[in-house]
Amino acid sequence: MTLEQAKENLMTLQAKMSAYDHAMGLISYDGMTTAPKGTAANRGRTLAVLSEEQYKLSTGEQTVKLLEFLDSQKQELTEKEQRMVFLLLKEIRQMQKIPMEEYVAYQELLNEADDVWQNAKRNNDFASFEPLLEKIFETNRRFAGYCAPDKDPYDYWLNEYEDGLDRQTCDRFFDALRQRLVPLIKKVAEKPQVSDACLWGQAPENQQQALSLRLMQIMGLDPAHVGFSTTEHPFTTSLGSHFDERVTTHYQPDNFSSSMFSVIHENGHALYDTGSSDDLAYTVLDGGVSMGIHESQSRFYENLLGRSRAFTGFLFPQLQELFPYLKQFSAEDFYKAVNRVQPSLIRTEADEVTYCLHVMIRYELEKRVMAGELSVHDLPGEWKRLYQEYLGVDVPDDRQGVLQDSHWSGGSIGYFPAYALGSAYGVQFLQKMRESVDVDGCLAAGNFAPINDWNREHIWQYGSLYKPAEIMQKVLGEGLNPDAYLSYLENKCKEIYGV
Amino acid sequence: MTLEQAKENLMTLQAKMSAYDHAMGLISYDGMTTAPKGTAANRGRTLAVLSEEQYKLSTGEQTVKLLEFLDSQKQELTEKEQRMVFLLLKEIRQMQKIPMEEYVAYQELLNEADDVWQNAKRNNDFASFEPLLEKIFETNRRFAGYCAPDKDPYDYWLNEYEDGLDRQTCDRFFDALRQRLVPLIKKVAEKPQVSDACLWGQAPENQQQALSLRLMQIMGLDPAHVGFSTTEHPFTTSLGSHFDERVTTHYQPDNFSSSMFSVIHENGHALYDTGSSDDLAYTVLDGGVSMGIHESQSRFYENLLGRSRAFTGFLFPQLQELFPYLKQFSAEDFYKAVNRVQPSLIRTEADEVTYCLHVMIRYELEKRVMAGELSVHDLPGEWKRLYQEYLGVDVPDDRQGVLQDSHWSGGSIGYFPAYALGSAYGVQFLQKMRESVDVDGCLAAGNFAPINDWNREHIWQYGSLYKPAEIMQKVLGEGLNPDAYLSYLENKCKEIYGV
Repeated sequence: MTLEQAKENLMTLQAKMSAYDHAMGLISYDGMTTAPKGTAANRGRTLAVLSEEQYKLSTGEQTVKLLEFLDSQKQELTEKEQRMVFLLLKEIRQMQKIPMEEYVAYQELLNEADDVWQNAKRNNDFASFEPLLEKIFETNRRFAGYCAPDKDPYDYWLNEYEDGLDRQTCDRFFDALRQRLVPLIKKVAEKPQVSDACLWGQAPENQQQALSLRLMQIMGLDPAHVGFSTTEHPFTTSLGSHFDERVTTHYQPDNFSSSMFSVIHENGHALYDTGSSDDLAYTVLDGGVSMGIHESQSRFYENLLGRSRAFTGFLFPQLQELFPYLKQFSAEDFYKAVNRVQPSLIRTEADEVTYCLHVMIRYELEKRVMAGELSVHDLPGEWKRLYQEYLGVDVPDDRQGVLQDSHWSGGSIGYFPAYALGSAYGVQFLQKMRESVDVDGCLAAGNFAPINDWNREHIWQYGSLYKPAEIMQKVLGEGLNPDAYLSYLENKCKEIYGV
Repeated sequence: MTLEQAKENLMTLQAKMSAYDHAMGLISYDGMTTAPKGTAANRGRTLAVLSEEQYKLSTGEQTVKLLEFLDSQKQELTEKEQRMVFLLLKEIRQMQKIPMEEYVAYQELLNEADDVWQNAKRNNDFASFEPLLEKIFETNRRFAGYCAPDKDPYDYWLNEYEDGLDRQTCDRFFDALRQRLVPLIKKVAEKPQVSDACLWGQAPENQQQALSLRLMQIMGLDPAHVGFSTTEHPFTTSLGSHFDERVTTHYQPDNFSSSMFSVIHENGHALYDTGSSDDLAYTVLDGGVSMGIHESQSRFYENLLGRSRAFTGFLFPQLQELFPYLKQFSAEDFYKAVNRVQPSLIRTEADEVTYCLHVMIRYELEKRVMAGELSVHDLPGEWKRLYQEYLGVDVPDDRQGVLQDSHWSGGSIGYFPAYALGSAYGVQFLQKMRESVDVDGCLAAGNFAPINDWNREHIWQYGSLYKPAEIMQKVLGEGLNPDAYLSYLENKCKEIYGV
């Protein structure tokens, strides 16, 4: 095999992997959006076959030989090729440590778990989901043991979602947040509450759909390559490459802002994914590098831009056209309402200030279950206890408690901290962006192009070419620093509540 | 390999094939329903990879050895296993004759053609579709040459869609229809036309969607396993097995009957597919045996039941609830309107009497293009000429002419005659069914269970276990006989027009 042939085979291999990702991703997406409710077992059979084929492709002798050959010729490879080989070898060496039957069984388990979780949430029935969640945690512990026997299993998964992350970093980060956020929330609670009355009113689904499409257009997504659907739990996914991106949302008939900010959030993910340089398509470098950087983009658009005075002021007249009841309110009412601080039950609808406490609760619970200090059976009770302790709210049922998120049923143990990290990264990026972009001027005019251009130039185009820490260093010259984030939140509270 | 192992491997092989069918079927379905418009090329890449894998699986040495071994032990196999081995070997021997690159290129061509055809139809632009259609016809000729070098290429494809069919049978069948239908249509034209005013009125999409779901329920489809979507050209497909069936439709804002009869037609396909015995799932015997028998079921429900006095009488009060403008009309008005005979442009909306002339035109054109007697370039003109000659209508544009159907862009050359054959089979089945089922009584009560039970017992449960001709013999004791069909149409005209 010559080096040129090997380089070509490297691209063919990744194209095949992308095809399997496309097929399996679409089957899951279909299950969460369009498929009839009784078809999960049928999807499970197909996913089992495809994941077995994918496993064989990834860990097959030919693949390993190819990658080891290319790795031995590292100095002859481009920067991109080097990173492809590194990421592929890393993944393969992990996969090789997981027996194929167990890998396939896990895919089937996740397929079943999604279905069971959806029903459990609908029926407020944690007991039906418990045995599957127990298996998911157990499998995550077992797989971590296979892949990194010397590492703590939860540290292993934290690092998987965010290269470089471990419990120590998380503990330090969350401690810093807690120290300044808890007193801040207390001070806010002592002030008169702002009204969110303008968020509640008749919002017909077709008008909300029109708003979703409007937001896609304003934010600069290309409808030829980005689709919209509805689902129980909103998510964003690429199918095959960043040339086919899907955003989903969930409409509430009496509160348009719920879907609106969810759409802006998911659109942030979609902008990052579709912003990959086109020559990264059909390679492992296509799309975002880590969950932390991904969430830094989604929460950047959702909160730092979406809840800003400039953007809400720009959008409000259009909202009044779509939802006529808003004509009795002002843009300032709307700005205050979407920045109201109020401890609550649902993470995805939490305000910016209390949001990280929701994440912390999940982090703490995951950490303890993974360490064997807490049983899955006791999760609902502990969930309720911590919501009372940290947020002072009573969780009336598991539907609004432990069953609210899709992450655990999807097998994503160790993902949650990325939401908090991403929120902090985003503020650091915004500070840097302001040095060269008139962000507020752009938002007030509904002109996202200069903002997107900056993100594309500094972050999106690279896909997974650089590690999260490398991107931070390249863009900011520093790593994670919660100070900027905390100052941002304190300023927001000062503006809204005068504290 | 022991016989028991081989039998087990036979099931595993078919399960794998079903998984690839599921993935590729879903990717196509997604393209026709949900996917963003600019993503055809992305799907094409994935389909190319998957069809290559599917090809390798089907024609690989292991597969061929397995099937030949089982074939050599035929007497030890069950009837079902014998038929599986026969059908798989037949398909493989054909596939082996087609070079893999050409097979893969054809899948890519079809994926592109669907996209180009959709745009061509939208923009009334045959020229943009012409080069692709030329390639599709050329590939069908070439593949027929590989698979059956001694056979006429069009005969080859007719036989593929309906085991046993050739041009001679088609010519004879269509001649019989022509002899009695042309004078019948003339006689009808001399009578005063019945009004179809009741079909035209405001029909909001959400009300039409409610009607679709109502029809699914009335016809006895299980919503846990049968899904609904909208698309340009309605179709029905199974994904992976008959446990996941998808029906699509297309709504016209001012005519609910267009989608209504299309839905009843597609539901007929879905009943046939989902009526396969459950132990046929994940094998090649799952689902219908041929296009002719499939259309006999779809057109059975659409016309013989759907346009009957008994069923229209049952449904009309419900239609009045859904579409209040109907309150000024009677059930008899509706019955006459949906049985109005009127030469027209669009096959899928043609009445029962003129319908077969639409099919004949496509048959004649395909036959001539396949024989090299007509160029693809001249298709739109010939289409217009034949519509004038046979139906006496002017085709104003290609959108309502040669671009109306999805069959050619989907590569289905030789499929159309099945619609006419199926219509005739259906009447033969109905005559037989009436010997033991009070069909009109059931329809008047909206009770499809006895009808479905009869079809399940005699036709559906067998999937592809028996050839079309075998099913006819088993159920009827005779083969195709256009007389029953022609008498049925003549009686209908007598009732509606008194001719």
